[in-house]
Amino acid sequence: MTDFSFLADDGLVDSLITEIAGLLRRLIEQDEAGSIDLLGLPLSPSCLAALSECLGQGEIAVQLDAAGRSTIRETGFPGVWWTTHADKAGRIVAMLIEVAFVPDIVRAPRDDVTRGFQRLPNVTRADGRRFPATTVRSRPGAGTRPGSRLQ
Amino acid sequence: MTDFSFLADDGLVDSLITEIAGLLRRLIEQDEAGSIDLLGLPLSPSCLAALSECLGQGEIAVQLDAAGRSTIRETGFPGVWWTTHADKAGRIVAMLIEVAFVPDIVRAPRDDVTRGFQRLPNVTRADGRRFPATTVRSRPGAGTRPGSRLQ
Repeated sequence: MTDFSFLADDGLVDSLITEIAGLLRRLIEQDEAGSIDLLGLPLSPSCLAALSECLGQGEIAVQLDAAGRSTIRETGFPGVWWTTHADKAGRIVAMLIEVAFVPDIVRAPRDDVTRGFQRLPNVTRADGRRFPATTVRSRPGAGTRPGSRLQ
Repeated sequence: MTDFSFLADDGLVDSLITEIAGLLRRLIEQDEAGSIDLLGLPLSPSCLAALSECLGQGEIAVQLDAAGRSTIRETGFPGVWWTTHADKAGRIVAMLIEVAFVPDIVRAPRDDVTRGFQRLPNVTRADGRRFPATTVRSRPGAGTRPGSRLQ
Protein backbone atom coordinates (compact mmCIF):
# COMPACT_ATOMS: atom_id res chain seq x y z
CA MET A 1 0.00 0.00 0.00
CA THR A 2 1.28 3.43 -0.88
CA ASP A 3 2.61 5.38 2.06
CA PHE A 4 0.86 8.73 2.09
CA SER A 5 2.32 9.87 5.38
CA PHE A 6 4.64 12.32 3.62
CA LEU A 7 1.57 14.41 2.87
CA ALA A 8 0.87 14.88 6.56
CA ASP A 9 2.15 18.38 7.07
CA ASP A 10 1.09 21.86 7.90
CA GLY A 11 -0.14 22.57 4.40
CA LEU A 12 -2.71 19.83 4.59
CA VAL A 13 -4.22 21.15 7.81
CA ASP A 14 -4.33 24.63 6.28
CA SER A 15 -6.01 23.20 3.18
CA LEU A 16 -8.62 21.49 5.33
CA ILE A 17 -9.33 24.70 7.22
CA THR A 18 -9.72 26.48 3.87
CA GLU A 19 -12.05 23.72 2.68
CA ILE A 20 -14.14 23.94 5.86
CA ALA A 21 -14.39 27.72 5.39
CA GLY A 22 -15.68 27.09 1.87
CA LEU A 23 -18.29 24.63 3.16
CA LEU A 24 -19.35 27.16 5.81
CA ARG A 25 -19.74 29.82 3.14
CA ARG A 26 -21.95 27.47 1.12
CA LEU A 27 -23.99 26.66 4.23
CA ILE A 28 -24.52 30.32 5.05
CA GLU A 29 -25.18 31.52 1.52
CA GLN A 30 -27.01 28.54 0.02
CA ASP A 31 -28.26 26.56 3.03
CA GLU A 32 -26.39 23.55 1.71
CA ALA A 33 -24.70 21.17 4.13
CA GLY A 34 -21.47 19.42 3.27
CA SER A 35 -18.88 17.09 4.73
CA ILE A 36 -15.27 16.02 4.50
CA ASP A 37 -14.42 12.34 4.79
CA LEU A 38 -11.33 12.43 6.99
CA LEU A 39 -10.55 8.72 6.65
CA GLY A 40 -10.53 9.11 2.88
CA LEU A 41 -7.64 11.55 3.15
CA PRO A 42 -3.98 10.76 3.84
CA LEU A 43 -4.00 12.25 7.33
CA SER A 44 -1.62 11.05 10.02
CA PRO A 45 -2.84 10.84 13.63
CA SER A 46 -0.85 13.97 14.48
CA CYS A 47 -2.39 15.80 11.54
CA LEU A 48 -5.86 14.87 12.80
CA ALA A 49 -4.86 16.02 16.27
CA ALA A 50 -3.65 19.35 14.87
CA LEU A 51 -6.90 19.82 12.96
CA SER A 52 -8.92 18.94 16.04
CA GLU A 53 -6.92 21.45 18.10
CA CYS A 54 -7.43 24.17 15.49
CA LEU A 55 -11.17 23.62 15.45
CA GLY A 56 -11.49 23.48 19.22
CA GLN A 57 -14.40 22.27 21.28
CA GLY A 58 -17.99 23.47 21.35
CA GLU A 59 -20.73 22.96 23.91
CA ILE A 60 -22.68 20.13 22.32
CA ALA A 61 -21.99 16.41 22.12
CA VAL A 62 -24.36 13.89 20.58
CA GLN A 63 -24.25 10.14 21.02
CA LEU A 64 -26.17 7.68 18.96
CA ASP A 65 -26.15 4.01 19.87
CA ALA A 66 -27.50 1.84 17.09
CA ALA A 67 -25.19 -0.51 15.17
CA GLY A 68 -22.17 0.74 17.07
CA ARG A 69 -21.75 4.15 18.61
CA SER A 70 -21.71 7.42 16.72
CA THR A 71 -20.48 10.56 18.36
CA ILE A 72 -20.95 14.03 16.99
CA ARG A 73 -19.24 16.81 18.85
CA GLU A 74 -19.60 20.45 18.07
CA THR A 75 -16.30 22.16 17.37
CA GLY A 76 -15.51 25.69 18.50
CA PHE A 77 -16.99 26.82 15.18
CA PRO A 78 -20.79 26.57 15.28
CA GLY A 79 -22.06 24.54 12.35
CA VAL A 80 -18.83 22.54 12.15
CA TRP A 81 -19.22 19.08 13.69
CA TRP A 82 -16.66 16.32 14.22
CA THR A 83 -18.44 13.04 13.63
CA THR A 84 -17.14 9.55 14.38
CA HIS A 85 -18.90 6.28 13.68
CA ALA A 86 -17.72 3.09 15.36
CA ASP A 87 -18.87 -0.46 14.67
CA LYS A 88 -20.16 -2.84 17.34
CA ALA A 89 -16.60 -3.84 18.22
CA GLY A 90 -15.70 -0.20 18.84
CA ARG A 91 -13.56 0.16 15.70
CA ILE A 92 -13.83 3.55 14.07
CA VAL A 93 -15.30 3.05 10.62
CA ALA A 94 -15.93 6.66 9.64
CA MET A 95 -14.68 10.08 10.66
CA LEU A 96 -16.16 13.20 9.12
CA ILE A 97 -16.22 16.92 9.40
CA GLU A 98 -19.86 17.83 8.92
CA VAL A 99 -20.79 21.39 8.11
CA ALA A 100 -24.48 21.87 8.81
CA PHE A 101 -26.84 23.75 11.09
CA VAL A 102 -27.92 20.39 12.50
CA PRO A 103 -25.96 17.13 12.23
CA ASP A 104 -27.96 14.93 9.91
CA ILE A 105 -28.13 11.97 12.26
CA VAL A 106 -30.00 13.94 14.94
CA ARG A 107 -32.96 14.69 12.71
CA ALA A 108 -35.89 12.33 13.32
CA PRO A 109 -37.02 10.94 9.95
CA ARG A 110 -40.58 11.96 9.11
CA ASP A 111 -41.67 8.37 8.42
CA ASP A 112 -40.39 7.23 11.81
CA VAL A 113 -42.21 10.10 13.50
CA THR A 114 -45.43 9.11 11.74
CA ARG A 115 -45.07 5.45 12.71
CA GLY A 116 -44.43 6.43 16.33
CA PHE A 117 -47.45 8.70 16.32
CA GLN A 118 -49.63 5.83 15.15
CA ARG A 119 -48.65 3.51 17.99
CA LEU A 120 -48.47 6.14 20.74
CA PRO A 121 -52.13 6.45 21.79
CA ASN A 122 -52.30 2.86 23.02
CA VAL A 123 -48.97 2.79 24.77
CA THR A 124 -50.16 2.86 28.36
CA ARG A 125 -52.76 0.18 27.91
CA ALA A 126 -51.19 -2.01 25.24
CA ASP A 127 -48.73 -3.90 27.42
CA GLY A 128 -50.21 -3.49 30.85
CA ARG A 129 -47.71 -0.85 31.94
CA ARG A 130 -49.75 1.24 34.30
CA PHE A 131 -49.04 3.81 36.87
CA PRO A 132 -47.73 2.12 40.07
CA ALA A 133 -50.73 1.06 42.14
CA THR A 134 -49.40 2.48 45.39
CA THR A 135 -49.63 6.01 44.11
CA VAL A 136 -53.04 5.78 42.49
CA ARG A 137 -55.61 7.62 44.57
CA SER A 138 -59.27 7.89 43.81
CA ARG A 139 -59.59 11.47 44.94
CA PRO A 140 -61.74 14.03 43.22
CA GLY A 141 -59.79 15.82 40.54
CA ALA A 142 -57.65 12.84 39.67
CA GLY A 143 -57.07 12.59 35.95
CA THR A 144 -57.66 16.25 35.33
CA ARG A 145 -56.47 17.06 31.89
CA PRO A 146 -53.39 19.27 32.17
CA GLY A 147 -54.05 20.99 28.87
CA SER A 148 -54.08 24.48 30.29
CA ARG A 149 -50.53 24.10 31.53
CA LEU A 150 -49.14 22.94 28.26
CA GLN A 151 -47.10 25.32 26.19
CA MET B 1 -48.26 25.53 49.38
CA THR B 2 -51.10 23.52 47.92
CA ASP B 3 -50.47 19.80 47.75
CA PHE B 4 -51.13 18.70 44.20
CA SER B 5 -49.92 15.15 44.69
CA PHE B 6 -53.49 13.81 44.65
CA LEU B 7 -53.51 14.56 40.93
CA ALA B 8 -50.66 12.15 40.30
CA ASP B 9 -52.51 9.17 38.94
CA ASP B 10 -52.99 7.07 35.92
CA GLY B 11 -55.32 9.56 34.30
CA LEU B 12 -52.65 12.22 34.24
CA VAL B 13 -50.14 10.01 32.47
CA ASP B 14 -52.82 9.05 29.98
CA SER B 15 -53.62 12.74 29.46
CA LEU B 16 -49.96 13.51 28.82
CA ILE B 17 -49.70 10.70 26.28
CA THR B 18 -52.80 12.08 24.56
CA GLU B 19 -51.27 15.56 24.59
CA ILE B 20 -48.00 14.26 23.13
CA ALA B 21 -49.97 12.51 20.39
CA GLY B 22 -51.64 15.84 19.62
CA LEU B 23 -48.28 17.60 19.41
CA LEU B 24 -46.96 14.84 17.14
CA ARG B 25 -49.98 15.26 14.88
CA ARG B 26 -49.31 18.99 14.66
CA LEU B 27 -45.62 18.33 13.93
CA ILE B 28 -46.45 15.89 11.14
CA GLU B 29 -49.29 17.87 9.60
CA GLN B 30 -48.14 21.45 10.12
CA ASP B 31 -44.39 21.17 10.76
CA GLU B 32 -44.87 22.94 14.07
CA ALA B 33 -42.84 21.92 17.07
CA GLY B 34 -44.23 22.02 20.60
CA SER B 35 -43.34 21.18 24.15
CA ILE B 36 -44.79 20.30 27.52
CA ASP B 37 -43.30 21.86 30.64
CA LEU B 38 -43.23 18.90 33.01
CA LEU B 39 -42.15 20.92 36.05
CA GLY B 40 -45.13 23.21 35.51
CA LEU B 41 -47.47 20.27 36.04
CA PRO B 42 -48.41 18.57 39.32
CA LEU B 43 -46.49 15.38 38.58
CA SER B 44 -45.10 13.19 41.34
CA PRO B 45 -41.74 11.47 40.82
CA SER B 46 -43.54 8.16 40.28
CA CYS B 47 -45.81 9.77 37.72
CA LEU B 48 -42.75 11.07 35.83
CA ALA B 49 -41.20 7.62 36.06
CA ALA B 50 -44.35 6.06 34.63
CA LEU B 51 -44.40 8.57 31.78
CA SER B 52 -40.73 7.94 31.10
CA GLU B 53 -41.34 4.21 31.05
CA CYS B 54 -44.28 4.59 28.68
CA LEU B 55 -42.22 6.67 26.25
CA GLY B 56 -39.21 4.36 26.38
CA GLN B 57 -35.71 5.03 25.19
CA GLY B 58 -34.44 5.96 21.75
CA GLU B 59 -30.97 5.79 20.26
CA ILE B 60 -29.88 9.41 20.59
CA ALA B 61 -28.65 11.39 23.58
CA VAL B 62 -27.46 14.98 23.40
CA GLN B 63 -25.46 16.82 26.02
CA LEU B 64 -24.90 20.52 26.10
CA ASP B 65 -22.55 22.05 28.65
CA ALA B 66 -22.95 25.79 28.90
CA ALA B 67 -24.42 27.39 32.02
CA GLY B 68 -25.05 23.98 33.57
CA ARG B 69 -25.72 20.79 31.70
CA SER B 70 -28.64 20.13 29.41
CA THR B 71 -29.49 16.62 28.34
CA ILE B 72 -31.86 15.73 25.56
CA ARG B 73 -32.62 12.08 25.10
CA GLU B 74 -34.69 10.66 22.35
CA THR B 75 -37.62 8.60 23.59
CA GLY B 76 -38.80 5.42 21.90
CA PHE B 77 -41.03 7.68 19.79
CA PRO B 78 -39.00 9.51 17.15
CA GLY B 79 -39.58 13.23 17.37
CA VAL B 80 -40.41 13.04 21.08
CA TRP B 81 -37.48 14.20 23.23
CA TRP B 82 -37.06 14.25 27.01
CA THR B 83 -35.12 17.39 27.84
CA THR B 84 -33.61 18.33 31.19
CA HIS B 85 -31.74 21.52 32.04
CA ALA B 86 -29.60 21.71 35.18
CA ASP B 87 -27.92 24.78 36.65
CA LYS B 88 -24.23 24.96 37.49
CA ALA B 89 -24.85 23.32 40.84
CA GLY B 90 -26.50 20.37 39.12
CA ARG B 91 -30.03 21.27 40.21
CA ILE B 92 -32.69 20.49 37.62
CA VAL B 93 -34.29 23.78 36.62
CA ALA B 94 -36.36 22.63 33.67
CA MET B 95 -37.78 19.38 32.38
CA LEU B 96 -39.64 19.27 29.10
CA ILE B 97 -41.12 16.95 26.57
CA GLU B 98 -40.11 18.42 23.24
CA VAL B 99 -41.91 17.32 20.11
CA ALA B 100 -39.79 18.27 17.11
CA PHE B 101 -37.82 16.75 14.27
CA VAL B 102 -34.69 18.26 15.83
CA PRO B 103 -34.35 19.44 19.43
CA ASP B 104 -34.06 23.18 19.25
CA ILE B 105 -30.87 23.41 21.28
CA VAL B 106 -28.88 21.33 18.79
CA ARG B 107 -29.42 23.75 15.94
CA ALA B 108 -26.44 26.08 15.39
CA PRO B 109 -27.75 29.66 15.26
CA ARG B 110 -27.10 31.26 11.87
CA ASP B 111 -25.42 34.32 13.42
CA ASP B 112 -23.01 32.12 15.37
CA VAL B 113 -22.19 30.15 12.23
CA THR B 114 -21.47 33.39 10.38
CA ARG B 115 -19.24 34.72 13.16
CA GLY B 116 -17.32 31.43 13.25
CA PHE B 117 -16.91 31.50 9.49
CA GLN B 118 -15.36 34.96 9.71
CA ARG B 119 -12.68 33.95 12.19
CA LEU B 120 -11.95 30.49 10.77
CA PRO B 121 -9.51 31.30 7.93
CA ASN B 122 -6.88 32.67 10.30
CA VAL B 123 -7.18 29.99 12.93
CA THR B 124 -3.95 28.11 12.26
CA ARG B 125 -1.78 31.20 12.02
CA ALA B 126 -3.48 33.55 14.47
CA ASP B 127 -2.25 32.02 17.69
CA GLY B 128 0.85 30.18 16.55
CA ARG B 129 -0.74 26.74 16.74
CA ARG B 130 1.06 24.91 14.01
CA PHE B 131 1.42 21.35 13.03
CA PRO B 132 3.90 19.62 15.39
CA ALA B 133 7.38 20.22 14.03
CA THR B 134 8.49 16.61 14.40
CA THR B 135 6.02 15.45 11.78
CA VAL B 136 6.56 18.23 9.24
CA ARG B 137 8.47 16.90 6.26
CA SER B 138 9.58 18.95 3.34
CA ARG B 139 8.93 16.29 0.75
CA PRO B 140 7.61 17.01 -2.70
CA GLY B 141 3.83 16.85 -2.72
CA ALA B 142 3.47 18.09 0.82
CA GLY B 143 0.58 20.49 1.15
CA THR B 144 -1.28 19.09 -1.80
CA ARG B 145 -4.80 20.37 -1.70
CA PRO B 146 -7.08 17.47 -0.85
CA GLY B 147 -10.03 18.89 -2.77
CA SER B 148 -10.58 15.89 -4.98
CA ARG B 149 -11.22 13.66 -1.97
CA LEU B 150 -13.77 15.94 -0.44
CA GLN B 151 -17.43 15.05 -0.68
